[in-house]
Amino acid sequence: SKGSQNEKGGSQSKGKGKSGKFVLKTPKGTRDYGPMEMAYRREVFNVIYSVFHMHGAVQIETPVFELKDVLTGKYGEDSKLIYDLEDQGGEILSLRYDLTVPFARYVAMNKIDNIKRYHVARVYRRDSPAMTRGRYREFYQCDFDIAGQFDAMIPDAECVQLVHQVLSKLGLGEFTIKINHRKILDGVFGSCGVPSEKFRPICSAVDKLDKSPWEEVRKEMVDEKGLDEEVADKIGNYVKLSGREELLETLANDELLKSSPSAQAGFADLKLLFQYCKSLGCAEHLVFDMGLARGLDYYTGVIYEAVLTAGQNFGEEGPVGSVAGGGRYDGLVGMFDPKKKTVPCVGLSFGIERLFTIYEQKMRAESNKVRATQTEVFVVTACKGMVHERLKLLGLLHEAGIKAEGSYKNNPKILNQLQYAEDNKIPLVALIGESEVEAGVVKIRDTVTREETTIKREELVETVRQKLGGL
Amino acid sequence: SKGSQNEKGGSQSKGKGKSGKFVLKTPKGTRDYGPMEMAYRREVFNVIYSVFHMHGAVQIETPVFELKDVLTGKYGEDSKLIYDLEDQGGEILSLRYDLTVPFARYVAMNKIDNIKRYHVARVYRRDSPAMTRGRYREFYQCDFDIAGQFDAMIPDAECVQLVHQVLSKLGLGEFTIKINHRKILDGVFGSCGVPSEKFRPICSAVDKLDKSPWEEVRKEMVDEKGLDEEVADKIGNYVKLSGREELLETLANDELLKSSPSAQAGFADLKLLFQYCKSLGCAEHLVFDMGLARGLDYYTGVIYEAVLTAGQNFGEEGPVGSVAGGGRYDGLVGMFDPKKKTVPCVGLSFGIERLFTIYEQKMRAESNKVRATQTEVFVVTACKGMVHERLKLLGLLHEAGIKAEGSYKNNPKILNQLQYAEDNKIPLVALIGESEVEAGVVKIRDTVTREETTIKREELVETVRQKLGGL
Repeated sequence: SKGSQNEKGGSQSKGKGKSGKFVLKTPKGTRDYGPMEMAYRREVFNVIYSVFHMHGAVQIETPVFELKDVLTGKYGEDSKLIYDLEDQGGEILSLRYDLTVPFARYVAMNKIDNIKRYHVARVYRRDSPAMTRGRYREFYQCDFDIAGQFDAMIPDAECVQLVHQVLSKLGLGEFTIKINHRKILDGVFGSCGVPSEKFRPICSAVDKLDKSPWEEVRKEMVDEKGLDEEVADKIGNYVKLSGREELLETLANDELLKSSPSAQAGFADLKLLFQYCKSLGCAEHLVFDMGLARGLDYYTGVIYEAVLTAGQNFGEEGPVGSVAGGGRYDGLVGMFDPKKKTVPCVGLSFGIERLFTIYEQKMRAESNKVRATQTEVFVVTACKGMVHERLKLLGLLHEAGIKAEGSYKNNPKILNQLQYAEDNKIPLVALIGESEVEAGVVKIRDTVTREETTIKREELVETVRQKLGGL
Repeated sequence: SKGSQNEKGGSQSKGKGKSGKFVLKTPKGTRDYGPMEMAYRREVFNVIYSVFHMHGAVQIETPVFELKDVLTGKYGEDSKLIYDLEDQGGEILSLRYDLTVPFARYVAMNKIDNIKRYHVARVYRRDSPAMTRGRYREFYQCDFDIAGQFDAMIPDAECVQLVHQVLSKLGLGEFTIKINHRKILDGVFGSCGVPSEKFRPICSAVDKLDKSPWEEVRKEMVDEKGLDEEVADKIGNYVKLSGREELLETLANDELLKSSPSAQAGFADLKLLFQYCKSLGCAEHLVFDMGLARGLDYYTGVIYEAVLTAGQNFGEEGPVGSVAGGGRYDGLVGMFDPKKKTVPCVGLSFGIERLFTIYEQKMRAESNKVRATQTEVFVVTACKGMVHERLKLLGLLHEAGIKAEGSYKNNPKILNQLQYAEDNKIPLVALIGESEVEAGVVKIRDTVTREETTIKREELVETVRQKLGGL
């Protein structure tokens, strides 16, 4: 049957020929996506697109590769993971590593003052793949960003609201949106005695707190990054804290941080963010987490990350973790502008591959209603020599915009055709034999109830529409 | 205003810094796509997706790169246009050149017996870009293929029907679907005295007939490909012919071709195809064109190509030419199977970049109703200190699934806000000032008529829905 292909499109099956020469596989860290997976993906994308459109975002698209110079100096230690293209005579190119840097390049190149855009596309990282945990070398990112000079925290609050809306609509269970602020972290680092040239490396160590215990992070700070033990311990007192607005209040009055203008600016931003989120109706899941650091160098203000908290797991591989993240990056566009004119930006990226996996698990567990196709009517012929009659009926249904299929055989067996409709969950069958054609009628059969009614051929479209409407 | 960005997202603006070091551009032969272009593209894609779903096609996705071996030996002379990735230690990879070879690899690797799938994605060719004619190095392909052992011409007729439906629905004007058959061409070549090892090179010369006059094609056959002059002239008598079913009949009885089993098999197929297309209601645009050859080596049966005929041009660059093409390729899957087990295939590819351009020209000429965003309501505050009230209203509208935006300023000027709604063709404005908040009401303003009505806040969602329904 047509539905017989391996849904999983598994990328690991090796069809090594007897010659041993040719291995049939997809490149390391990549995979194919089969019909059912694509059907689940379409549903997740549709939810996200609908939220993007709710916020009036426009869509843009950039090339899959950029001049290598565009990517250089943007990703710190991770630059080694960039895929380069071979120099075949011409420009030196690399595959994009994320959608944020191409976005900044786009804004600078087109001298755009402000834009609210989304961009959904695959990005490329030569990382160690962990395919069972959904980590691939080629994966989708789903980005929403607001660029422009605006009043504090209004676009930032919209980003938090958007994450809240997408996760609520997908219905994947409880979630938390952690927030922090780079200026608070820098204030903490400065107040604890970290020299300013070590702010970013120490920040990158703090970023590992969601995967490693404090002791390991402390070790990295002291052993690898040369921090004094006492300084590390002072930092430890802060980055373990998390809470709600009260914690903001408490820390704003903290003895050490009171005198840090950087930290105080950060606290003021986050207080405002909490208030705006309350007005927007999306504050309930907000948690102020001093240990949230985000890996990338380019963040300059608010940072946030959404995690699923209701025990959604990758099978035995443990919790899903972060499903969305982002923050403010006010300096990136300026790196591309010849006059260093910058455009402040705030944005977020959905960990869409993880959302796909969780959504698919949930849908499979709950029911089985997602189909790979949307076919509404299967046209069945009851006897031999009816191929033209079948095609005429298909042409008629298609003309009316009805999704209809028929067998590709001249003389298919009637039971096989009915079975196909059942196997593929096609709700209706339009059945004709010689007598139906002679009498100018069609039998309509409900695939689930197996009820049949005979109608005039001219009533076919209207009847099908009615029956589909009632299903 | 937010709508101020350059819609064209032109890829050619060079922001060369004073240092002369950094050129701000996209790679040669590529470009960005801005908000309006993406809006037009979404509309074209939606039409095509709806037709694909009408035929019960499933969707698949494959990686953007393949092992280089997968692409080797599939594209003949064009292999030099393949983009290779740098060898960074690991597998040798190339960017995909089309979607057909990855599809055949997918079918073979997953041991699929039959599948009807579509795949929409960008492909990569290091060709000389002709950007004013819409030819890029990175461009979308939009493929539909049917794999499986079926009765003659039923899937092939569905492909023709699908091209017919998409072009009709897009409403881009008159079109012709040219058909021919590789077995007919081979029959002609054989009967005229071409040695069989020259069938494919001579076929590839015939393929140039749509761009070059016969004299040039003949010259290529004789001078470059070493054909006898008389043989070339004999071929010339056939490949200039085109017509409808009558021509099929005439040629089937042609003195020379009567004794060619290959040509006769081709004629039988095309006769059946004509009949099936009549039953499906898509025969009117079919033209049997003996000069149609298609470039790629892998076709083995019916081939077809759709051209717009009503003078749709790329500005001064001349006619659009082919907007869809495809055919039967029964041997390709077998090239990937270790036991050479093959799965017959027929399919087509839309020249979607050309369709985008023509569609955009048409829409711009006809009216201006396509918007880059879908925002339905713009929330306007009439006086200072209302940012929280604005956010509350936005939260309320979003909660109800209504697409709404507001200013990112604390205290925006009322005229600027109303102007923004007009500029961006947002149909409704929800306006509040201090007195409205106190009285628990909202003013609804129709952006086009400028009519205002004051309603209770609790009626906002329902009123907006009604007004949007009536627009």
